[in-house]
Amino acid sequence: MYNISILSIGDEICIGQIVNTNAAWIAEQMTSLGANVRLHLSIGDERNEIVESINLLRNKSDFIIVTGGLGPTHDDITKDVLNDYFEDHLVFDDDSFENITTMFRIRNRELSERNRMQAMVPSKCKVLRNSQGTAPGMLFVREDFALVSLPGVPIEMRAIMTDHIIDFVKEQIENKHSEFVKYKTLNTIGMPESTLADTLGDTSMFLQESDSLAFLPSTRGIRLRIGSKGSTHQQIDSRISAIESHILERAGKFVYSIGKSSIIEELSNLLISRNQTLSVAESCTGGLLSSEITALAGSSKYFLGSYVTYSNEMKISSLGVKPSTIEQNGAVSEETALEMAKGCLQASNSDYSISITGIAGPDGGTQDKPVGTVWVAVANRNTAHAKRFQFHGDRKEIRERAMNFSVSQLLNLINETAN
Amino acid sequence: MYNISILSIGDEICIGQIVNTNAAWIAEQMTSLGANVRLHLSIGDERNEIVESINLLRNKSDFIIVTGGLGPTHDDITKDVLNDYFEDHLVFDDDSFENITTMFRIRNRELSERNRMQAMVPSKCKVLRNSQGTAPGMLFVREDFALVSLPGVPIEMRAIMTDHIIDFVKEQIENKHSEFVKYKTLNTIGMPESTLADTLGDTSMFLQESDSLAFLPSTRGIRLRIGSKGSTHQQIDSRISAIESHILERAGKFVYSIGKSSIIEELSNLLISRNQTLSVAESCTGGLLSSEITALAGSSKYFLGSYVTYSNEMKISSLGVKPSTIEQNGAVSEETALEMAKGCLQASNSDYSISITGIAGPDGGTQDKPVGTVWVAVANRNTAHAKRFQFHGDRKEIRERAMNFSVSQLLNLINETAN
Repeated sequence: MYNISILSIGDEICIGQIVNTNAAWIAEQMTSLGANVRLHLSIGDERNEIVESINLLRNKSDFIIVTGGLGPTHDDITKDVLNDYFEDHLVFDDDSFENITTMFRIRNRELSERNRMQAMVPSKCKVLRNSQGTAPGMLFVREDFALVSLPGVPIEMRAIMTDHIIDFVKEQIENKHSEFVKYKTLNTIGMPESTLADTLGDTSMFLQESDSLAFLPSTRGIRLRIGSKGSTHQQIDSRISAIESHILERAGKFVYSIGKSSIIEELSNLLISRNQTLSVAESCTGGLLSSEITALAGSSKYFLGSYVTYSNEMKISSLGVKPSTIEQNGAVSEETALEMAKGCLQASNSDYSISITGIAGPDGGTQDKPVGTVWVAVANRNTAHAKRFQFHGDRKEIRERAMNFSVSQLLNLINETAN
Repeated sequence: MYNISILSIGDEICIGQIVNTNAAWIAEQMTSLGANVRLHLSIGDERNEIVESINLLRNKSDFIIVTGGLGPTHDDITKDVLNDYFEDHLVFDDDSFENITTMFRIRNRELSERNRMQAMVPSKCKVLRNSQGTAPGMLFVREDFALVSLPGVPIEMRAIMTDHIIDFVKEQIENKHSEFVKYKTLNTIGMPESTLADTLGDTSMFLQESDSLAFLPSTRGIRLRIGSKGSTHQQIDSRISAIESHILERAGKFVYSIGKSSIIEELSNLLISRNQTLSVAESCTGGLLSSEITALAGSSKYFLGSYVTYSNEMKISSLGVKPSTIEQNGAVSEETALEMAKGCLQASNSDYSISITGIAGPDGGTQDKPVGTVWVAVANRNTAHAKRFQFHGDRKEIRERAMNFSVSQLLNLINETAN
């Protein structure tokens, strides 16, 4: 196994001011290459802590990926600490300086002395050009381990990883290591974790020693992550495929996608391939579904837009919901959801629509309609369905579940009408 | 200092399948109590790794907060490992079982043997009731350190932290430790990092040995985190206040909020206090602004809704943008942005509106309007302003910057008209 550790440096991570999305992104990239990401460690901008951590991690890993602490301000100390750690001295790197000046020209900003200092690098590292910012990456290759230092700004870190580190790691794995692990994830929605576990049956009946199966519950449903370890792709792939078949046989109708693809990506691909359009009417999700749809590049191919009708007046004026419908049944009701979906279809002239109206909490719940009550309707030009859900969780989770389950409802409608 | 380490257990974190938001949340809570969060460590569901990590962390911390691995499936091993680590044996806990049966009754699900097993706990721990799920928390207090094990599901982890752990930590800090650190964050928007650093001047002139000042750039602008260490609240507060005054004096007009409050929260509070309403017209942000506004409970007090007019047809039909405006100037233009903002105000009858139209990329850029070009307009019943921005970053970052800077523009308009 080629073992990797991720070391994130920055007080802002330690004290919880920012969420460490870098570590997850790096881990996902490295795992997909067949590396074994053994641990993530986050520490503050503190010299002794950085040195101690590198000493700890070099015993546990072939490669340490360090992020953070390369900015132009005084609290960024990573470069100096690494320079001392590797008993090196700083030299001025012309290529990095050229990159820095280009960045400033593009952004129309004036170069300061602080920025010029970013072109100083340890003499014995390989300098990695940063196509998205001013701090270069630095790769140190030693006999027993390698270490790369990357900026903490996500777009800059990702650019250097993509341009330089992925090929480096591929080469290391191919040259030096025989055993590796691969994963495949099946994404399910609509079945609770313990029911799913019972449906799949005793794991010892379909998993071998080198296999693993993890249940990952989230607002996107339960993801099933199959893992297998071996020394050839063929051997591993055949194990993963056997486990996948077992799952699909028993719980296939709850699996909406395989791999990284979200339920919204599934819907996108389906609608683009069918050359059909979608519009959306959101109340309790307040734009979340639209925002996630448009987060994907290319969504304009099928997505016309949405009406975030947070007030009753906007449900009436934008979607043509009848005031009497809201008066008699409430804004969170089958009737309102259906009129929202139909009105949305009509106002935007789309092929399909989704409407969501519910109580995301923490206030607004009643005996009959507690917090978490959500009505979802889906419509095309011939038909419209509505369904009531009772979600648990806080406001954020209820909104996310409403979003994902609403898409699942539309996928059902499209699949039904396609048959 | 009362030192805390956070240990997150789960293959899904290690391999990057999920982002570790738990660690950030816990760190933020603990830091606000005055504890020193020394490090976050994330490892897989692997017995030896868990034991090694606890041995490492107990030397570095007074309290270890462990999350993950308490679910009902076979890959969850944390409880067994801790039971062995503390040389204990499992006993059936009636109170936990009662909580589990109640949970299943509320959710209308049938209790399985897997779930019943969640009521088995080590005999020598303090069992912490989980008000949001079935896995109880477990607190182990030993002479040289304490450790708590919590479920990895965020809402359950947060409930147990809030109900049981916060008071425990407060007590520990008060009883045992004299020195602590406090932080205060000033949030700025509109000035680049190095310009801001130069504006504030040489830090040695206004920071003492026990103080710190960090620059945290993000799509929300640059946050300035002031830190100071000491043994009394008075001593620390006076240092923080001195540094804050220095910053406000030099860069005060770029500070939009203090502490955790986002620019959207600032806008919410302002509009609620003024009893005024807002509606929004979004194109390239595709619902992101609406979604973030409605993520806050109570947003219905001022937010009427939004028109996510992703297609030109919807800009025309929902907002009354003139076809000729789009033909002559393009959808990304001052004229279109202004007509969107005015149309939005009129259609929803709100007091204020924001419109956003731009090129989020990766495609769609031209020589004149490269990716990152965004027009923002803000309007009230008397006036409307538009401003062009050129953002850098990827699609996600451009959308986030557009969202935050658009709110900043509306705050400027409200403040101008208020004077």
